[in-house]
Amino acid sequence: MTRFQADELTRNGFLGGRIQLWQPRHGYRAGVDPVLLAAAVPAKTGQSVLELGCGAGAAILTLHGRVSGLHLQGVELQPAYADLGRRNGAENDANLTVTCCDLTSLPPELRQMQFDHVIANPPYYRAGAHSVAVDAGRRTALGEETPLALWVEVAARRLAPKGYLHMIQRTDRLPDILMACEGHLGSVEVLPLSARLGRASDLVILRARKGGKAAFRLHAPLILHEGARHEKDGESYRAEIRAVLRDGAAIPWPDAE
Amino acid sequence: MTRFQADELTRNGFLGGRIQLWQPRHGYRAGVDPVLLAAAVPAKTGQSVLELGCGAGAAILTLHGRVSGLHLQGVELQPAYADLGRRNGAENDANLTVTCCDLTSLPPELRQMQFDHVIANPPYYRAGAHSVAVDAGRRTALGEETPLALWVEVAARRLAPKGYLHMIQRTDRLPDILMACEGHLGSVEVLPLSARLGRASDLVILRARKGGKAAFRLHAPLILHEGARHEKDGESYRAEIRAVLRDGAAIPWPDAE
Repeated sequence: MTRFQADELTRNGFLGGRIQLWQPRHGYRAGVDPVLLAAAVPAKTGQSVLELGCGAGAAILTLHGRVSGLHLQGVELQPAYADLGRRNGAENDANLTVTCCDLTSLPPELRQMQFDHVIANPPYYRAGAHSVAVDAGRRTALGEETPLALWVEVAARRLAPKGYLHMIQRTDRLPDILMACEGHLGSVEVLPLSARLGRASDLVILRARKGGKAAFRLHAPLILHEGARHEKDGESYRAEIRAVLRDGAAIPWPDAE
Repeated sequence: MTRFQADELTRNGFLGGRIQLWQPRHGYRAGVDPVLLAAAVPAKTGQSVLELGCGAGAAILTLHGRVSGLHLQGVELQPAYADLGRRNGAENDANLTVTCCDLTSLPPELRQMQFDHVIANPPYYRAGAHSVAVDAGRRTALGEETPLALWVEVAARRLAPKGYLHMIQRTDRLPDILMACEGHLGSVEVLPLSARLGRASDLVILRARKGGKAAFRLHAPLILHEGARHEKDGESYRAEIRAVLRDGAAIPWPDAE
């Protein structure tokens, strides 16, 4: 399948409706994770950003929704998602180019480029460790056809000196990601995300820097929801997280102490 | 120096005085870290415990202070500290043997033993990354003559199947420790310790299991002090931490969810 049909798509608002994205009704649909990833990136107007595995563009376009004047480049393996990413970029007035290719075989013109930022929300499950998704596009988006170490390695190669990688991933993959950074990226910082205060972390946002020399840092967790448990249906995000999801606020990273 | 002189020693109470330890006045002196390490170990009466780099015995003997009837074995490179460890073991009625050797060249009788638990509080600073301590014993205790990976490897070899390693270490070394565990130990869990709520973690307690297959877990931080900053001299530990340091309480690890 190289293109979704009109009746296979829905249009959803992000950042309180500031960004509108077409997404497949039954395929991979962006949740809050790409929005949190984008909110953690300290990109400034005029800088360049590469997203590996951009899908329909939720992360890179919510970043565009928060920071104007970025030069945006996406790479997406699946033609139908790459196509959606282009359409979503155009309809949201983003300066976004999407290249349809495997991230391990970027075309020559991309291999000559360097970026101030690389972002990625790689698939969350190890190959074989999850039941097979019925939808092939969703399967590729959730599976692991490319090892995490390759995502980090490709990101490191495409970063300009002092450029930042930001990646969101399940916490149980943190050892793999840290090992992947070794020798490629430095000044690694981990921001754990926890559903509720006192709970183990489910997701981490990793920041690493090309040529960075600072010691590894593990920040206090960013707590997503109010209260100790899920108590009622509907909204329970903490105000700080609501501001990220609804108003396009940035996630502040703690300064070096 | 193979032995401290009497006037070079002080005697200090741990766990509210339940454990009394001779320590060198000017050498390496145990703080709260070995006590926290010992409090994190789920040892049961009748089990065996090996401490790598036991020094004067603060970790293994505070563990003895909390759990009676353990078979305790220490390994210590520096003769004068090994000697103190033996004396402290005897004076606190612990079943403790201390072997004076490099942990990378254990004598044959130790290489034939397996332990239910291995604990370690390895030196905190990378070789060359700190100013040289004046006291030679303190220098060895704080320096890094043996890479962290070797501590983990030796621990893994001495653990019985399903046995636990617990290690306390600076958070900036977490990537090195996780890499060291790869291929040797599994079911890795990290308990970050933070001085205060919302602060980055300074220390981590790592738990790993011989033959463990569970996914990596990053727990909510254990907060040591009340309040947002250091406000007055003296006591500011949270009640849960005071109970560990004063009353010999255990640190509860969160169950699998």
